[in-house]
Amino acid sequence: MKARIQVMLKTGVLDPQGEAVRHALGAMGFDGVNGVRQGKVIELDLDDSVSEEDVTRMCEQLLANTVIESYSVEMG
Amino acid sequence: MKARIQVMLKTGVLDPQGEAVRHALGAMGFDGVNGVRQGKVIELDLDDSVSEEDVTRMCEQLLANTVIESYSVEMG
Repeated sequence: MKARIQVMLKTGVLDPQGEAVRHALGAMGFDGVNGVRQGKVIELDLDDSVSEEDVTRMCEQLLANTVIESYSVEMG
Repeated sequence: MKARIQVMLKTGVLDPQGEAVRHALGAMGFDGVNGVRQGKVIELDLDDSVSEEDVTRMCEQLLANTVIESYSVEMG
């Protein structure tokens, strides 16, 4: 079984990495890019015994910093 | 308009970051995690004039290192 977790900085939290990408795209001549946010995606290869609740606990305890990041879990 | 780009290391390319996460989850008592791959996700806020072809060019030229990374683009 696979789980895909997406972790993004919460709205309002400054994203210097995303800003750097936005500037670079502008400097390369790509117009029309108003904002860039960069996050991470984590793909887990899991035994069938692992539930979505287990994955949520992994996110809360290790994979996301819930003070500044939000996460979403997609199973399957 | 939004675009979401997911960049992952290609199959066969070592992912030390993912390995570190796998070890950490095991050490924390989470069993049944057979593999972890970590990638990045980039969300672009775009003018409507920007096409999916433009986004693909951004990926090829800046956002992904196509030697070792694959990417997927999702518009909308």
